[in-house]
Amino acid sequence: MDISNRVGSMQFSPIRRFNKYGFEAEANGKTVYRLNIGQPDVETPPCFKEAINNFDKKVIAYAESGGVTELLDAMIDYMKLYDMHYTRDDILITNGGSEALTLIFTALLNPGEEALIAEPFYTNYNTFCNQVNGKLVPLTTKAEDGYAWAKKDLIEAAITPQTKAICCISPGNPTGRVLTLDEMKLVGEIAKEHDLWIISDEVYREFAYDGREVTSFGMLEDLADRVVLVDSVSKRYSACGARVGAVISKNKDLMSGILKLAQGRLCCPTLEQVGAAALYRLDKSYYDSAREEYCARRDAAYEEISKIPGVVCQKPGGAFYLTAKLPVEDVEDFLMFMLTEFDDNGETVMFTPASGFYATPGLGKDEMRIAYVLEPAKMRRGAELIKLGIEAYNKKLGK
Amino acid sequence: MDISNRVGSMQFSPIRRFNKYGFEAEANGKTVYRLNIGQPDVETPPCFKEAINNFDKKVIAYAESGGVTELLDAMIDYMKLYDMHYTRDDILITNGGSEALTLIFTALLNPGEEALIAEPFYTNYNTFCNQVNGKLVPLTTKAEDGYAWAKKDLIEAAITPQTKAICCISPGNPTGRVLTLDEMKLVGEIAKEHDLWIISDEVYREFAYDGREVTSFGMLEDLADRVVLVDSVSKRYSACGARVGAVISKNKDLMSGILKLAQGRLCCPTLEQVGAAALYRLDKSYYDSAREEYCARRDAAYEEISKIPGVVCQKPGGAFYLTAKLPVEDVEDFLMFMLTEFDDNGETVMFTPASGFYATPGLGKDEMRIAYVLEPAKMRRGAELIKLGIEAYNKKLGK
Repeated sequence: MDISNRVGSMQFSPIRRFNKYGFEAEANGKTVYRLNIGQPDVETPPCFKEAINNFDKKVIAYAESGGVTELLDAMIDYMKLYDMHYTRDDILITNGGSEALTLIFTALLNPGEEALIAEPFYTNYNTFCNQVNGKLVPLTTKAEDGYAWAKKDLIEAAITPQTKAICCISPGNPTGRVLTLDEMKLVGEIAKEHDLWIISDEVYREFAYDGREVTSFGMLEDLADRVVLVDSVSKRYSACGARVGAVISKNKDLMSGILKLAQGRLCCPTLEQVGAAALYRLDKSYYDSAREEYCARRDAAYEEISKIPGVVCQKPGGAFYLTAKLPVEDVEDFLMFMLTEFDDNGETVMFTPASGFYATPGLGKDEMRIAYVLEPAKMRRGAELIKLGIEAYNKKLGK
Repeated sequence: MDISNRVGSMQFSPIRRFNKYGFEAEANGKTVYRLNIGQPDVETPPCFKEAINNFDKKVIAYAESGGVTELLDAMIDYMKLYDMHYTRDDILITNGGSEALTLIFTALLNPGEEALIAEPFYTNYNTFCNQVNGKLVPLTTKAEDGYAWAKKDLIEAAITPQTKAICCISPGNPTGRVLTLDEMKLVGEIAKEHDLWIISDEVYREFAYDGREVTSFGMLEDLADRVVLVDSVSKRYSACGARVGAVISKNKDLMSGILKLAQGRLCCPTLEQVGAAALYRLDKSYYDSAREEYCARRDAAYEEISKIPGVVCQKPGGAFYLTAKLPVEDVEDFLMFMLTEFDDNGETVMFTPASGFYATPGLGKDEMRIAYVLEPAKMRRGAELIKLGIEAYNKKLGK
């Protein structure tokens, strides 16, 4: 009466499994700067809640499996901002980007089939892929190189007869790497040559800094039949708890397969979709102000982190994460020290050990990810606490 | 660049795939009585929406992966109504009963492993099981026998070395069959003898009529380690569009495995959980009045359906479905006739062909499922339309 092997061998989320030590530190009276999870403190635009509050039907009924029409139409108009043109049949609403990815892996991978992904990568991809017995094959990148991965040699060396798809997360979590349109074209050429799908997770689409353009695989029309986009309201609109995402593709076989799966789980919550429709109708200026806010947070975080002696880190170009190599051997052990032993004036900090973002065993043990989701002054203080912590930790270890 | 075999071979939901003909009939000016889907017209208790409207945090943030504490505690108190005692760690909140079942199958079945289920069964179990390459093995039941299935011979004949679990849906969809506590004990004995899990879908728990007691596998303490319950607000509280469900089990390995999967998709929507907590805190009298209402609908539907010459149907004991054998050879063809050719005073009716509820090829072609989710007068008219339709259909076929 055992459980399945796929689940037995899974790990707990490396992003969430230190939570309880964070709560304990708080229970012991410490203030904990939570840089470990991509939960912004930015206000959710009030139109989300207003639309829900105004919903006045007496029965909270099932929605259509593919999504509420009002939301599909709002998304279609939003995509037009970037000159991307979709129809209702090209979009299916999901429970966050997470369910979108689960549906995509379920619809694409037979047991044992492979998807390429640059490591370090957002760790939950392991869950989405393993739960259907697929296999993620890592393309290893390095802090020293700014985690660049769109290279023909690197990608082609990993392709096998089992390879079915290339996963692209841009702007990237956890590295903040942003693909240029030329890099996307290169990935597209490789995908065409080897007949692969492109799974493009673009939930941070607008968060590209320093004059970088907003890019999307949806802009490359010659790839339309092999590209599937993942979208979400979580980050763009600071509405993580709404759990509204989408699968977007012009490949009819894929969308038809995903609709079958979606019908099995009936629909996404009706009210959340009504609220999300209001978000997708926000004026384009909203994205500019959000980008400006996160860029200021990035600047604050990067400036302080890069001052720490021995740190290896390049300025991230997008999303709201920064991955850095720290001058400690074991970042997990260092984090436990920060939560259970360290404080500075009653304050400490939480971050995520990056080893969980690597598929290759042994990599990333000296790296951490932080999410720059708090206001700039808090980011500075968080980074300062990491600096002070490293000094105290290495002193304790006699280094 | 094909899609996965598991999805390629899946069917569209037999409950939803006739929807477009229903919409077309409406567009052509017909009134369509929708008895095809378990979407009640009963008002969702206003406390659900009130709780959501009163939520006043500025950021719609992630919830904990296992669920919002307030909801877990409300569910714990609700279960105590039936003398069942659970802790927060025994419950994990899901996106409806649908996600609960997906998580359970993912956590229990290796590819090729089997779960037993009485057929006809709720068709989406195929999706939940197939998406992880598990296999549902049907225990065939008959209209003439009231779809009884809790029989030692029937169950044991289907057990193989690959059998991992027995699925129990009681009160049952689509048959309305209710297991007595003695039948549950029998199933439990078989499960113990063959070391099987029991997956008990109890989303219709309170809808047991004619003096039948509310029963649950959670009441049988000697089975606690092998039982996993599925719960949902959809039917009990007429809140289908809220998509709030739960996995409930005292088996720590299973709950730990399911938590890993749940962390992958981060959490369920925060607002819906706040609303659901209010539902689970409704007074026990709510269940009595809901039961009374559905019983009146059952009575109206059954009385009219059983008057149709040639119909085979026993009075369903629970849930809000009735499956019946009709005096036509091909119910799918009959349904198409009803939606595209038939009307009586501009009215027609939609139901679900039952063949999609059978795993054994060829079975159920002359059976239909109706959901008695509309008020009694509408159920009577719906049944009358079926009767008139059968007459017109058989006349057209020259019978």
